[in-house]
Amino acid sequence: MSVKQFIEKDKDRLLEELMALLRIPSVSADSAYKKDMLSAAEFLKIKLLEAGVDSVEICPTAGHPIVYAEKIMDPSWPTVLVYGHYDVQPPDPIELWESGPFEPIIKTTDRHPEGAIFARGACDDKGQMYMHVKAFEYMMREQKMYCNIKFMLEGEEEVGSPNLGPFMRENQERLACDVILISDTSMLGNESPSMTSGLRGLSYVEVEVTGPNRDLHSGTYGGAVANPINILAKMIASLQDEEGRITVEGFYDDVLEVSAEEREAMAKAPFDLADYKAKLGIDDVSGEAGFSTMERASIRPTLDVNGIWGGYIGEGAKTVLPSKAYAKISMRLVPNQSSEQITALFKKHFEALAPASVKVVVTPHHGGEPVLTPTDGIEFQAAAKAYEQTFGKRPIPLRAGGSIPIVALFEEILGAKTVMMGFGLDTDAIHSPNEHFGVFNYFKGIETLPYFYEHFRAMKEA
Amino acid sequence: MSVKQFIEKDKDRLLEELMALLRIPSVSADSAYKKDMLSAAEFLKIKLLEAGVDSVEICPTAGHPIVYAEKIMDPSWPTVLVYGHYDVQPPDPIELWESGPFEPIIKTTDRHPEGAIFARGACDDKGQMYMHVKAFEYMMREQKMYCNIKFMLEGEEEVGSPNLGPFMRENQERLACDVILISDTSMLGNESPSMTSGLRGLSYVEVEVTGPNRDLHSGTYGGAVANPINILAKMIASLQDEEGRITVEGFYDDVLEVSAEEREAMAKAPFDLADYKAKLGIDDVSGEAGFSTMERASIRPTLDVNGIWGGYIGEGAKTVLPSKAYAKISMRLVPNQSSEQITALFKKHFEALAPASVKVVVTPHHGGEPVLTPTDGIEFQAAAKAYEQTFGKRPIPLRAGGSIPIVALFEEILGAKTVMMGFGLDTDAIHSPNEHFGVFNYFKGIETLPYFYEHFRAMKEA
Repeated sequence: MSVKQFIEKDKDRLLEELMALLRIPSVSADSAYKKDMLSAAEFLKIKLLEAGVDSVEICPTAGHPIVYAEKIMDPSWPTVLVYGHYDVQPPDPIELWESGPFEPIIKTTDRHPEGAIFARGACDDKGQMYMHVKAFEYMMREQKMYCNIKFMLEGEEEVGSPNLGPFMRENQERLACDVILISDTSMLGNESPSMTSGLRGLSYVEVEVTGPNRDLHSGTYGGAVANPINILAKMIASLQDEEGRITVEGFYDDVLEVSAEEREAMAKAPFDLADYKAKLGIDDVSGEAGFSTMERASIRPTLDVNGIWGGYIGEGAKTVLPSKAYAKISMRLVPNQSSEQITALFKKHFEALAPASVKVVVTPHHGGEPVLTPTDGIEFQAAAKAYEQTFGKRPIPLRAGGSIPIVALFEEILGAKTVMMGFGLDTDAIHSPNEHFGVFNYFKGIETLPYFYEHFRAMKEA
Repeated sequence: MSVKQFIEKDKDRLLEELMALLRIPSVSADSAYKKDMLSAAEFLKIKLLEAGVDSVEICPTAGHPIVYAEKIMDPSWPTVLVYGHYDVQPPDPIELWESGPFEPIIKTTDRHPEGAIFARGACDDKGQMYMHVKAFEYMMREQKMYCNIKFMLEGEEEVGSPNLGPFMRENQERLACDVILISDTSMLGNESPSMTSGLRGLSYVEVEVTGPNRDLHSGTYGGAVANPINILAKMIASLQDEEGRITVEGFYDDVLEVSAEEREAMAKAPFDLADYKAKLGIDDVSGEAGFSTMERASIRPTLDVNGIWGGYIGEGAKTVLPSKAYAKISMRLVPNQSSEQITALFKKHFEALAPASVKVVVTPHHGGEPVLTPTDGIEFQAAAKAYEQTFGKRPIPLRAGGSIPIVALFEEILGAKTVMMGFGLDTDAIHSPNEHFGVFNYFKGIETLPYFYEHFRAMKEA
């Protein structure tokens, strides 16, 4: 039967399996969920075995385990390594969810008239990862396998994949492949397929500003002693000038300017600014002068304060001049900025900003390199052809705003390119409350993926 | 017997009674402690009756009750109204206390070689308030009463005394007095008595900045959508210029410049900048250009961010572009700034600072007017004479940095001046962890207060 028939016949089961996976609160950032991480790994192991892999191993790491499985049809065939992650973002703030983050429910929305599954991880990344398991099940059942397939499903993507690099280095032979396939990105729309041809990098730091050695009474000391919150605000404010450019010394040195032609091509992608603002409830967008909204969110580097706290933040008023103020700051990077270099530049710049009246500590978190996938390569071409078959139009190549730090690692350690076949939508609210994934999108992914393998094999042997 | 003999003979009891009061966690800001508020009021009622008042009433209000007591010796005598508060600041952050905030313990320190009582409220205001109850007990026992005494002890000073004004307006006749006496301020040192001749006012607001209508993924949207934390930082940073002056339009219009002569007199107070910095663990002080450290903390208005929060502030990294950012901001005011006017000016200025990409809401909290006590008035003179008797030197008149908002109310509603006889030290860490009050200071207050009544009566009848 065709893959569409397969989906139609088994659609309830296909949805119920995904929902069972979504019920497991596999939050990697919080050690309280350690047991659930194992449960999710075990679930995947069982499903992969049922789908027909030769073997599955739950590989322990210093953190959460990596689920590794393979189906080798023929050593002479090309090998595709499917990467996904079974861990999810923390669900907070929970009070903003309309249904439980780990109680998946299908509801219809404007952009998902056929319904969407609402749960933390529905889109990022369980729904998109599980499409691959079901596509594999189909190909095995209908004997439509064209490539060897290896699955590498980790549990720490949301916390920076600290153990993935070491795992890949220790298992280079086992993981040998011709291409890595990932579904953890989005498309422009259900009528406007697009593929991510580039990812931004990430630099993430935590800063701590200390003034006096204890909290002080703001009457007794206010005006005479530097307030670390006021100072931190000044330091953060100075990081961006009036043109929206980041002032960290050397920040833009390695940025590859995008050609006028490519910018023109990107500008052809459908984008409705009024709708964009209306959906976000904002009166105005804001960013680097000289670039459009879509460009600011994809081809330009950025700086965002992800969290800030200090002083008294409870109920009512407290007149304290606090000892400390903190912030979590991250920067999205573009080719050819280097995450390590940018982090070092930021640290140096920020520490130098501090007046003598305070002390500053900058602590780096995990980062990731920016990535570019050549649109003329067979990896991209095979995928584009698959989308064209199931959507009726070629996907527009777009550079994404987000980061998947391990993609740069793949090329470095395994020597293969990555192709990103995403089926989510930007409005699926990943990392936010009420995250969801369209039923249409889930099934479209299962339908599209088998064509990728077919075309990749054909193009490789051509 | 003399008051010193009284103190010596009963010193253990005098300390134990205060410690019993300190054990009651009478935190007014937190409704969880409502029962303890009543316990503290009941405790005071009993002690006042035992000391010899004619009557005590625990007067209900819309919030915590006011303890009102009186001892009328002779209607023709002057009447002193003693004000104090039995509520205390919240104890957090609790982890920074070396002993329990409500488990009073006496420990010696460099500045308190005779020991200090460590507990929340030891200095602000239970220790200083209770000195008055014990001084009264002494004067009654030894028949050394010179004035009628009325006690008005409230339970909401730390939350802005919202019900005190109404209480005073409803009880104007009952509260009729010639002077109000308060002990809720500090002296320069145990060898350097000083008296507060002025208080700063207070304006307190909470601000909320909203960007997008939900938390966003900072990769998908970062760089294209205004981040309310970044915006809030810019807005706060702009509130003070490089000279340390506040930029709110109209802010300084009503400030009475302090004369060169008065500044010279203030500069005579002993102040060791190196010691000040060393005790606070800072390498540099910081404030308005053209003013000394002590001036910045007393005769100049200020702006401090007391709390700030927004985005992800938990463990690890989360790449969120948050929907909202918040801050609690307060300003200390000097004569003749008006709290209501400054709050209105701030609100107008801050709202106008907001770019079109965010929405700002400014919510005022309680405030208070600045105050000046004439040093040539008999209130001040009687108190200064009392200090001279027990310390061996006249107290230096100093303007305090902190606010006691209801002092301005007293003059307005009761038509009498307030004299502030403080016995705490700036290093007693009020509003901070490990708050304490010297045993020397507690006993010195009890010793000094009876002389005030004697001199006030004499000066009034002269």
